[in-house]
Amino acid sequence: MAKEITPRSENYSQWYNDLVVKADLAEQSAVRGCMVIKPYGYAIWEKMQSVLDAAFKKTGVQNAYFPLFIPKSFFSREAEHVAGFAKECAVVTHHRLMNDPDGNGVIVDPDAKLEEELVVRPTSETIIWSVYKNWIKSWRDLPILCNQWCNVVRWEMRTRPFLRTAEFLWQEGHTAHATAEEAEAKARQMVGVYADFARNTMALPVIVGHKSPNERFAGALDTLTIEAMMQDGKALQAGTSHFLGQNFAKSFDVQFADKDGGLQYVWATSWGVSTRLMGALIMAHGDDNGLVLPPALAPIQIVMVPIYKTDEEHDAVIAEFEKIKAGLEALGHSVQIDDRDTLRPGFKFAEWELKGVPVRLAMGARDLAAGTVEVARRDTLTKETMALEGIEAHIHGLLDDIQANIYKKALDWRDSNIRKCDSWEEFKTEIQKGGFLLCHWDGTAETEQKIKDETKATIRCIPIDSCVCEEEGVDIYSGKPSKGRVVFAIAY
Amino acid sequence: MAKEITPRSENYSQWYNDLVVKADLAEQSAVRGCMVIKPYGYAIWEKMQSVLDAAFKKTGVQNAYFPLFIPKSFFSREAEHVAGFAKECAVVTHHRLMNDPDGNGVIVDPDAKLEEELVVRPTSETIIWSVYKNWIKSWRDLPILCNQWCNVVRWEMRTRPFLRTAEFLWQEGHTAHATAEEAEAKARQMVGVYADFARNTMALPVIVGHKSPNERFAGALDTLTIEAMMQDGKALQAGTSHFLGQNFAKSFDVQFADKDGGLQYVWATSWGVSTRLMGALIMAHGDDNGLVLPPALAPIQIVMVPIYKTDEEHDAVIAEFEKIKAGLEALGHSVQIDDRDTLRPGFKFAEWELKGVPVRLAMGARDLAAGTVEVARRDTLTKETMALEGIEAHIHGLLDDIQANIYKKALDWRDSNIRKCDSWEEFKTEIQKGGFLLCHWDGTAETEQKIKDETKATIRCIPIDSCVCEEEGVDIYSGKPSKGRVVFAIAY
Repeated sequence: MAKEITPRSENYSQWYNDLVVKADLAEQSAVRGCMVIKPYGYAIWEKMQSVLDAAFKKTGVQNAYFPLFIPKSFFSREAEHVAGFAKECAVVTHHRLMNDPDGNGVIVDPDAKLEEELVVRPTSETIIWSVYKNWIKSWRDLPILCNQWCNVVRWEMRTRPFLRTAEFLWQEGHTAHATAEEAEAKARQMVGVYADFARNTMALPVIVGHKSPNERFAGALDTLTIEAMMQDGKALQAGTSHFLGQNFAKSFDVQFADKDGGLQYVWATSWGVSTRLMGALIMAHGDDNGLVLPPALAPIQIVMVPIYKTDEEHDAVIAEFEKIKAGLEALGHSVQIDDRDTLRPGFKFAEWELKGVPVRLAMGARDLAAGTVEVARRDTLTKETMALEGIEAHIHGLLDDIQANIYKKALDWRDSNIRKCDSWEEFKTEIQKGGFLLCHWDGTAETEQKIKDETKATIRCIPIDSCVCEEEGVDIYSGKPSKGRVVFAIAY
Repeated sequence: MAKEITPRSENYSQWYNDLVVKADLAEQSAVRGCMVIKPYGYAIWEKMQSVLDAAFKKTGVQNAYFPLFIPKSFFSREAEHVAGFAKECAVVTHHRLMNDPDGNGVIVDPDAKLEEELVVRPTSETIIWSVYKNWIKSWRDLPILCNQWCNVVRWEMRTRPFLRTAEFLWQEGHTAHATAEEAEAKARQMVGVYADFARNTMALPVIVGHKSPNERFAGALDTLTIEAMMQDGKALQAGTSHFLGQNFAKSFDVQFADKDGGLQYVWATSWGVSTRLMGALIMAHGDDNGLVLPPALAPIQIVMVPIYKTDEEHDAVIAEFEKIKAGLEALGHSVQIDDRDTLRPGFKFAEWELKGVPVRLAMGARDLAAGTVEVARRDTLTKETMALEGIEAHIHGLLDDIQANIYKKALDWRDSNIRKCDSWEEFKTEIQKGGFLLCHWDGTAETEQKIKDETKATIRCIPIDSCVCEEEGVDIYSGKPSKGRVVFAIAY
């Protein structure tokens, strides 16, 4: 192995941290809780952005950019929002540094105190609705469908790369509508975009559902979520879409003249996914050899490693690789020939495995003479000797197979870790084994809180795209009547 | 006219502000000096990003992401850099808000004071070199070629949308090299990328040159710049590329083992362009009717306006437009049919002129019957009736013509406003008329400062891609010997 990784069975959490660092995805910076996203990690994020951005635009959404800073007073306007977001955040109080009169570098200039402190955005509902107030006068101005790709800051106490960091990158969509129905439909549409992206691009099976009131976004009437299961059986919330009702419109006094000339408050949604998706991707598919990247998100889809003793052998193999590379690039694939002469092939194999490259080709003089090449799949770790004839078309199809197989593997594993549970005693044991438990719930925040206090498990969602849950029953904890099962799990 | 714009001749500065707001590019926010980039403006910025990003990647540059916050002490490490950048900046001093015990919203929690204050990045050399220290051990780790697209904050006192804002969006490239020659070549290469982008994509003629020491980036040994001329004759610095020598490597102790096993400090460059380019685009090409967008950056390249009295006429024209639209989209163009039924064609014409859409098609029942369409060019404000037959190919070629014509117009105008000046008395009068003055300079900071104090003019650059300037002479101000002419102008 190129670099040693802790096996999952030994310490899943350490395995994750090892992977992030050793596969060159990210690292800690000198600033507490803020990570550096390295080029290889960022290239995956760019691919995510590009697929999502196109999907948003297809629904009529346009990108825009709103300020990084939010006046402190804005947070007091929406009562629930202030409780949820104004707590742990970065506060700008001054606008100047000066040379320390004692000669010790620079200090904050006490004369440069801001009249009103500015908060580095933890999310942008407040600043955006203060802007929408100027944009919206009449029903003709609606809907407004804006998204921004940006950084946000939440002063988290315990951070983990990608999963929970003080600063992270995300997109936040903010839409304004004339009716509640239209806003609710938009919130549903966008959680659908996220679910499609997770399944088709990330190869990540997700359950779509409503959050329980306890787990809702601060200021939302309804939060829709996509929930994924990691390999340790914990749940990871991978994206959320909120129906905000008229809360922000009322807080920022955003009204529109309807077709009859009456004044009405505007209806809102917001929805976002973040670099947390990187954490989901790593944890859902990685193995003890490293990352396993779905071809749709792999910065390098095919790597080629030459095996040679002489310069002649080297040149002949590289020449053949260049031909295959050109063919694959013409089919839209990203290819890298690993021609570093200071490393042995075995070292390179391990390194590209660690980095999760879906397909690896290796070729020596004997292969070349025989008109063959060795094709290794990252997802199954299997190798096959194939004819060079038609190799490009074969790999083109193979990448689709790999994408489908990674999804199927994650789906099978997840489904084998979803189980019904109807007894509280059983619940307390079962929930510790990981996985999702489908249980009856009486619909009250009290019961959910008590279950959380006793087991750390939360309701991940009330599923909407699966009918298995619609049945009458009794709450697993309180024994009160229930109209359907919800998903309980311990979550990241 | 849809919305009134101040004519350039009346008040150029107000014309610019009118254009920014009325063409829906950007607006002021509730936060001092921070703008909102509206969807139409952001769509232009996205096009800029996409062309530049591809050009960077072609040179081997990879994107990454570094923290928004920089520990205050980092700014003290590089002596010149602290003087240049640590002054007017946003300083985070606390990490929590709390409910005001007096019940008046939220206040900063005095118990949540940071041990060391954090500066919101005004530029990222310091944090990035603190990271590069971990990445660089040996010559094998070099070069490092990273770029990031992000937001930065400089607490400017007088702000103008796009041209000078407290928060702005930009890209900053930061490279690390084993030799001075390689770093200098990279700095030159990147200013070349900027120049190509300005000329070919923005249709903006620029002069490439070195900055004088007074105008250099804080911490650089050499700053290369592209300088453009706006329609009021002022200069606008549109992008810079810096050779940083070993200054940051020394400040952050970044050394590498060379091939002979010796330890050497790493050589650096940094280079950036920002949303300021939006200001350059607006000011270089706009006219009294509004924006004039080069087709390469126009979010909508062709707009189609139907003219009709009856529903039948409307439907027939729209059906024809849909056909043309499909043909143009197949050629890679972005098209919008303006089918709003609440506005008159004349109003729509003015609105799309204001927004700078390069080509407008208008068609009524009579055109349709005759197999013709009216084609209007935004750059020349001319109209022509054309046959529908082959219209897609015609427009495809027309867009190239428009791109070339916008560049030529700007180039002719600029060149007619560059003049040599060899007398100090003449200089004082001529510089007030605007334009670039090519003058001899003795190479001293003192002379440059005196000229600036007396006239507000600065040396925009010492040109490197034009031989007109290499001639012996005497300094226009001091009378001392000079080895060549430099470009003086009053700048944004």
